[in-house]
Amino acid sequence: MTYCVGLKLNRGLVFMSDTRTNAGLDNISTYRKMFTWVDEGESMITMMTAGNLATTQSVVSLIDERNKAPTDRHPAILEFHSMFQVAKYVGQTLKEVIAQHGENGERAESYFNATMIVGGQVKGSEPRLFLIYPEGNFIEAGDDTPFLQIGEMKYGRPILVRAFDAGMSFEEAVKLLLVSFDSTIKANLSVGLPLDLQIYERDSFRKGNQRRFRTNDAYFQTISHGWGDALKQAFDTLPNIVL
Amino acid sequence: MTYCVGLKLNRGLVFMSDTRTNAGLDNISTYRKMFTWVDEGESMITMMTAGNLATTQSVVSLIDERNKAPTDRHPAILEFHSMFQVAKYVGQTLKEVIAQHGENGERAESYFNATMIVGGQVKGSEPRLFLIYPEGNFIEAGDDTPFLQIGEMKYGRPILVRAFDAGMSFEEAVKLLLVSFDSTIKANLSVGLPLDLQIYERDSFRKGNQRRFRTNDAYFQTISHGWGDALKQAFDTLPNIVL
Repeated sequence: MTYCVGLKLNRGLVFMSDTRTNAGLDNISTYRKMFTWVDEGESMITMMTAGNLATTQSVVSLIDERNKAPTDRHPAILEFHSMFQVAKYVGQTLKEVIAQHGENGERAESYFNATMIVGGQVKGSEPRLFLIYPEGNFIEAGDDTPFLQIGEMKYGRPILVRAFDAGMSFEEAVKLLLVSFDSTIKANLSVGLPLDLQIYERDSFRKGNQRRFRTNDAYFQTISHGWGDALKQAFDTLPNIVL
Repeated sequence: MTYCVGLKLNRGLVFMSDTRTNAGLDNISTYRKMFTWVDEGESMITMMTAGNLATTQSVVSLIDERNKAPTDRHPAILEFHSMFQVAKYVGQTLKEVIAQHGENGERAESYFNATMIVGGQVKGSEPRLFLIYPEGNFIEAGDDTPFLQIGEMKYGRPILVRAFDAGMSFEEAVKLLLVSFDSTIKANLSVGLPLDLQIYERDSFRKGNQRRFRTNDAYFQTISHGWGDALKQAFDTLPNIVL
């Protein structure tokens, strides 16, 4: 399993992903699930992946054009004139990879499915955020649904629903994401640290702040421990029922 | 879907269940999912059900001995000398009902599975709380895992994990359950009001407080609205990251 969230703020986009992958409970590893492509001054695209690791790695390699010699690579993903075209391209690539894996005579125990969040900005248009399905189609985050989640999304959703505000600062958004991830990590063994963070500031067309939160990260620990106490205090402020 | 929670407190047991059942999104109804049997001064047993409604209604009818004339009914569930025997009896009944439905030539689209929480106290022993699986086997709530959930449990779990305390009062427990249910109702259409509450005070061997929270219940509204604000305040007390 996996947990990834993309937030669409007025100020820009914020992405967070965990790094745990597992094939059964007895075979866990750490893999990066967040990938960023930048053409400075022109476009910035971040992608997060959930699902079959062979599928998602294949998609990333194809987007990176790793089938070409390193000097010949000019990722097509950076040449589109709109984020809609980027989403279509990623969806098409994902669909093709799944179809190819599915064709190989051998039937795997699990499906080759994967889901992705793709967000960013191409010069001349607004920042946009998409969720891409294994069938290659996709939905976009809008004003009514300004965040997208993939993977194990249920535990961490209530706090997003309650506390998200499109006008919040990047600092508050990171805090919100860490609370949401901490709730998920406490409940589901298949989501785990380290966590990757990528911030994109609207109209900057370059990578914003990037950070990896490891188990011993001081700020993550502050949030993880502090949130328990803060929740209990919040709980105590509500009136008791008269039975 | 469904959401039911049983809490094992030092003071006794608290049960809460929703009442929404659905067969598809376009066919929803309200059914009670909480049932209580009492032999005053001797034993008190509450059961909550999740899963196929035909299965759970059958199990309840069998336990109620509704196949006998009303005057001949002396539910066997009240004649056991321990909660362990009660759990075995409910598990066996559940397993048999599922097997019978499964035998009838017709294959239904969905399975006949159901899961139950059974808790209570029989004179001479402690209050106990069990989760019963469709296979008829069961697990018991202990000191390390003092609450049990069935149905759509993920959204409402983080607050239980964070705020549950075996020493809490019944009033606080009701508040905790309403917060947990409210988070779930806000996220999943298949869990809905009204909510049923049953409290059992240790060593009382009679029904404790019982209550149904309807949509317009003033206390439920206070919690539902108040929790959003309390959460935001709690969130604001945590420090921001330095980016």
